[in-house]
Amino acid sequence: MEKPLVGIIMGSDSDLPVMREAAGILGEFGVSSEIVISSAHRAPEQTAEYARSAAARGLSVIIAGAGGAAHLPGVIAACTPLPVIGVPIKSGALSGVDALYAIVQMPSGVPVATVAINGAKNAGILAAQIIGSANPEIRAKVIAYKEKLAKQVKEKNDLLAELGIEGYMIRTGM
Amino acid sequence: MEKPLVGIIMGSDSDLPVMREAAGILGEFGVSSEIVISSAHRAPEQTAEYARSAAARGLSVIIAGAGGAAHLPGVIAACTPLPVIGVPIKSGALSGVDALYAIVQMPSGVPVATVAINGAKNAGILAAQIIGSANPEIRAKVIAYKEKLAKQVKEKNDLLAELGIEGYMIRTGM
Amino acid sequence: MEKPLVGIIMGSDSDLPVMREAAGILGEFGVSSEIVISSAHRAPEQTAEYARSAAARGLSVIIAGAGGAAHLPGVIAACTPLPVIGVPIKSGALSGVDALYAIVQMPSGVPVATVAINGAKNAGILAAQIIGSANPEIRAKVIAYKEKLAKQVKEKNDLLAELGIEGYMIRTGM
Amino acid sequence: MEKPLVGIIMGSDSDLPVMREAAGILGEFGVSSEIVISSAHRAPEQTAEYARSAAARGLSVIIAGAGGAAHLPGVIAACTPLPVIGVPIKSGALSGVDALYAIVQMPSGVPVATVAINGAKNAGILAAQIIGSANPEIRAKVIAYKEKLAKQVKEKNDLLAELGIEGYMIRTGM
Amino acid sequence: MEKPLVGIIMGSDSDLPVMREAAGILGEFGVSSEIVISSAHRAPEQTAEYARSAAARGLSVIIAGAGGAAHLPGVIAACTPLPVIGVPIKSGALSGVDALYAIVQMPSGVPVATVAINGAKNAGILAAQIIGSANPEIRAKVIAYKEKLAKQVKEKNDLLAELGIEGYMIRTGM
Amino acid sequence: MEKPLVGIIMGSDSDLPVMREAAGILGEFGVSSEIVISSAHRAPEQTAEYARSAAARGLSVIIAGAGGAAHLPGVIAACTPLPVIGVPIKSGALSGVDALYAIVQMPSGVPVATVAINGAKNAGILAAQIIGSANPEIRAKVIAYKEKLAKQVKEKNDLLAELGIEGYMIRTGM
Amino acid sequence: MEKPLVGIIMGSDSDLPVMREAAGILGEFGVSSEIVISSAHRAPEQTAEYARSAAARGLSVIIAGAGGAAHLPGVIAACTPLPVIGVPIKSGALSGVDALYAIVQMPSGVPVATVAINGAKNAGILAAQIIGSANPEIRAKVIAYKEKLAKQVKEKNDLLAELGIEGYMIRTGM
Amino acid sequence: MEKPLVGIIMGSDSDLPVMREAAGILGEFGVSSEIVISSAHRAPEQTAEYARSAAARGLSVIIAGAGGAAHLPGVIAACTPLPVIGVPIKSGALSGVDALYAIVQMPSGVPVATVAINGAKNAGILAAQIIGSANPEIRAKVIAYKEKLAKQVKEKNDLLAELGIEGYMIRTGM
Repeated sequence: MEKPLVGIIMGSDSDLPVMREAAGILGEFGVSSEIVISSAHRAPEQTAEYARSAAARGLSVIIAGAGGAAHLPGVIAACTPLPVIGVPIKSGALSGVDALYAIVQMPSGVPVATVAINGAKNAGILAAQIIGSANPEIRAKVIAYKEKLAKQVKEKNDLLAELGIEGYMIRTGM
Repeated sequence: MEKPLVGIIMGSDSDLPVMREAAGILGEFGVSSEIVISSAHRAPEQTAEYARSAAARGLSVIIAGAGGAAHLPGVIAACTPLPVIGVPIKSGALSGVDALYAIVQMPSGVPVATVAINGAKNAGILAAQIIGSANPEIRAKVIAYKEKLAKQVKEKNDLLAELGIEGYMIRTGM
Repeated sequence: MEKPLVGIIMGSDSDLPVMREAAGILGEFGVSSEIVISSAHRAPEQTAEYARSAAARGLSVIIAGAGGAAHLPGVIAACTPLPVIGVPIKSGALSGVDALYAIVQMPSGVPVATVAINGAKNAGILAAQIIGSANPEIRAKVIAYKEKLAKQVKEKNDLLAELGIEGYMIRTGM
Repeated sequence: MEKPLVGIIMGSDSDLPVMREAAGILGEFGVSSEIVISSAHRAPEQTAEYARSAAARGLSVIIAGAGGAAHLPGVIAACTPLPVIGVPIKSGALSGVDALYAIVQMPSGVPVATVAINGAKNAGILAAQIIGSANPEIRAKVIAYKEKLAKQVKEKNDLLAELGIEGYMIRTGM
Repeated sequence: MEKPLVGIIMGSDSDLPVMREAAGILGEFGVSSEIVISSAHRAPEQTAEYARSAAARGLSVIIAGAGGAAHLPGVIAACTPLPVIGVPIKSGALSGVDALYAIVQMPSGVPVATVAINGAKNAGILAAQIIGSANPEIRAKVIAYKEKLAKQVKEKNDLLAELGIEGYMIRTGM
Repeated sequence: MEKPLVGIIMGSDSDLPVMREAAGILGEFGVSSEIVISSAHRAPEQTAEYARSAAARGLSVIIAGAGGAAHLPGVIAACTPLPVIGVPIKSGALSGVDALYAIVQMPSGVPVATVAINGAKNAGILAAQIIGSANPEIRAKVIAYKEKLAKQVKEKNDLLAELGIEGYMIRTGM
Repeated sequence: MEKPLVGIIMGSDSDLPVMREAAGILGEFGVSSEIVISSAHRAPEQTAEYARSAAARGLSVIIAGAGGAAHLPGVIAACTPLPVIGVPIKSGALSGVDALYAIVQMPSGVPVATVAINGAKNAGILAAQIIGSANPEIRAKVIAYKEKLAKQVKEKNDLLAELGIEGYMIRTGM
Repeated sequence: MEKPLVGIIMGSDSDLPVMREAAGILGEFGVSSEIVISSAHRAPEQTAEYARSAAARGLSVIIAGAGGAAHLPGVIAACTPLPVIGVPIKSGALSGVDALYAIVQMPSGVPVATVAINGAKNAGILAAQIIGSANPEIRAKVIAYKEKLAKQVKEKNDLLAELGIEGYMIRTGM
């Protein structure tokens, strides 16, 4: 098995159904990743150790997801020189706004690259873009992915033009 | 000098004008405190070490203040069995709502006793109440403090009744 | 039956499914508690009387939960020198943000130790931490509890490493 | 001096510059009022006593203003059958949204008639409308007041038509 | 049939399941009411006419409920000297916060007595309190209602004391 | 087939169930429209090309709907002199508040005519009003439509008066 | 003087410093406008009359600005078939969020074309775009205006490239 | 002059006082950057061209700052495979919450790495971390920078311990 380039860490196993999308898209880009459950609050030493050792173990990027008072991405960022991508998880009464603020509003000196609430797939794409910024092969895959997205939009639009609104909704099972 | 019972920690020296109110009111209650600048993000190991050693050094309560993505209180709470009081500091574009959410919405297992935005004085009173819950002398001071508050309200009301609105505003320099 | 150390009070019996978690976790810590329905608005005199007599009856901490314009924790705090923990209950159109603001933003002089929206379990843990700040036996239980949390995280992480994402989700019934 | 029909109560003397507008407009309607400083949190017994005795002392309406975790209007409403008008006061980091939610979101059974943040003048007008609903003389004054408002708007519009934008802004010192 | 004292008006028939609670509780107080569908936006002239004629037709109070950009209460208040109670209806993407702001933040001169989101029952109680402020018979019913509320709280608390948490939840079908 | 006067464009086919209402109501007004899927982010060149060619192809108004970081309406408005109507789509954790802010808060120079969250039907009506501002036939249809709305409100109110609350709710299947 | 094509109406003369920008930019486009102070709440009949007569008087578009519970644009839209542009005015404790919600969240059937908070200039541009959608001369001016905007951006960028950050800030007096 | 590795682009020259901090910190890391004013709305073609050519011109990362309906970072991200960092600028009535939502809530497929409101300095640090993820020299500088931050915190804490609260505030001119 290839040595992972991206570490995906989450604060609770309940975040797994969201965070697995990061691993999935990285797989599509051919970027190997590892996935870890830790917790800034319930397992602080294990979490700090994970972050401190990440660069030496060969990781290039860390993706961290957490909900509520989401400290995990910031705590990881405090302990590594690697770029850290934060994924606010939607949960509880505040629907992820708490997690968004707790991740994005980091103080001067310790940034976290925040993506949308539940945006784990985009976190994976961003990790690939970061790796691709110095790796032409991965960058080429990012370019191909973006072309595929544009093509899919065009195909949907063509289908809508062909079938009309009602037909499109029936065909696509809306 | 008496050994401190309450540790007051803040993420940045810019929080000092707010957080000093905690030390001030604790002084009025005769509760000794220490005041420390650390940062969950810029000095993570020093911060964790402070929290891990707090109980052994004889502290009974920790008050932690921070603004923005305010992780300090939660990071402290992760590393100590002591009760931790969190003070969200008003700062930046979100006026402390980010700090409030990042402190109060802690996950199950690791509570932070959150007070109002910039509520450092109340954090000090709450620390005294916590110590007073097992210390009759401090509790007596809390009771006396609450009686003083009620008396001040009554005096203001009497003055307003005597002087009327305009007179009261002139007398009190409003 | 042991004399209760913690009073758990709620504004409506509809808060019981949330607030019972405070009693449950206190039971795990071996801290006796009593549970009471009152209402700052519908039964103001009974509520004030409960708060005024709490210290004399031997309580060390009061946990108060309420939703909407959640005045119960503050009204209790106004009438007792004991530390009061407030639990904002999620309910209605504002999903508990109203309760959070109405509990945490207490004026100078009368703090309420606020936990997360629906955070009754954490309120119980915080009460144990407060009692434990002067009671080595309870503090030892808090320390053990925190170690158990860290161990659970580690076990979940080990299981994820063993089974992979799909396997983990199947095994845990996600 | 006439016996007051409207009680105006506020949680802190810092609310006086806002709350005095209620007394002022009531004076214009010829409705006598009394003005009182109390505090649901710092002087709970005095506050409850004020509310419990209000109807017997001849008050018809109570206007209560408070900021932050604004419990005063609700605490008053809990202890009187009179209609209670709540004025959220703008203060602190949340600019009065906390006070608005803490006043308007009252539970079933105990309403507070909430006006705009800092809307003490409108609270006075509402009190006059409430008294006027059974008092033709006061209602006539309310009708005259509304006609005056409409006339003022018309006069401003006429002046704008006459002077143009620049001229109007110069004339009115904008 | 008695001439109605309270007019209940709503912006859409979809508000009826909420607004009927106002009529229901007024019926319990023996206060007659009428219920009307109009719309500030879709039927502006009918709405203004309703408001302008309300006082002459003998109404004492108007309760107006609306959702979204909820203009109905304010438009009614613009056209009558009667006290107008506004009920923000929960609907759509903003869950009634839009309606709350659009009702409570009325400009100087034209107040609306705002109750909680979906608080139609409290609107009815408030209307009874307003009528009761000059009608001893209705006021007596308000007092009795408040005593009943306190008694119900006490009974629930006694039942909880008797049955314990689990027993209470089983008995009440939670 | 008539040449379309209104272009309806959406960022994703998942917006179709909302955006089709714009096409539907335009059909009722006899205004021809075309419906297009594009994406400011996934298909930026196709989107810009659509906007740049719109006026020359004979469109008078463009309606653009998008959710989340909803850039589509603004991106369209940047590339056409035509009036652009933006429809914020409710989706994800922020329920459309993100889309509302991302559409309505356009910088000076490039307005977007924003309607309510999910307000595609109103977007269609607004497009008809815009066309009707220079087309008497369409304006007459707008006037007729508004009269129909008023009549419907009146009929519902008459039915409620006839059947009472319970009867109305049964008859209309509420 | 030319007959005005655009009516600019505001709820209070305090809105004039913002709303005058609409008149200013319309003047630049050579579109004549009239400016009027009215109030949905303080002068409801005058306001309705203004809206009802607008189309017959030759107006093509109405721009309405208001703050707080901003009903003016919606009340105007209720009484005219013309397109109505709403400008939420920043004021008071909620900084215009109340006005934004009260304007944009209009119910089905009665749209208001909402622009940014304090976006009166954009309201004027939008009015020109609406008129331009059927008037080639005005559309040409809109196109020229957009080209000027692009040119200004390019000039600023060229100046920044020439002077560097410090030089640019000195030259432009930042 | 070295070829720039980071492009810094902003929507308006009024963003320069914030965005220059990104250039400043990159300079400290020895990373060359270029700074550009463009606008997604006022100069859409120039903006798209900048993004499309960025990778070929040798940039590794783009930092884009914008306020209000902040589309610039997303529009850039749509047209380049490079990682794009978005800086929400505080401006206007919503204080940057609009910009935050408009930047962070990007749809699936096109991420923007969002930092705090006005967090341009952190954007620069994040860009250095991204470059450092494949460049040991830059990574070493990031590590040294983090050590300097920790040292500064320690020095401040030592000074506070030495001088006490009052002394510290005097010495540092607070």
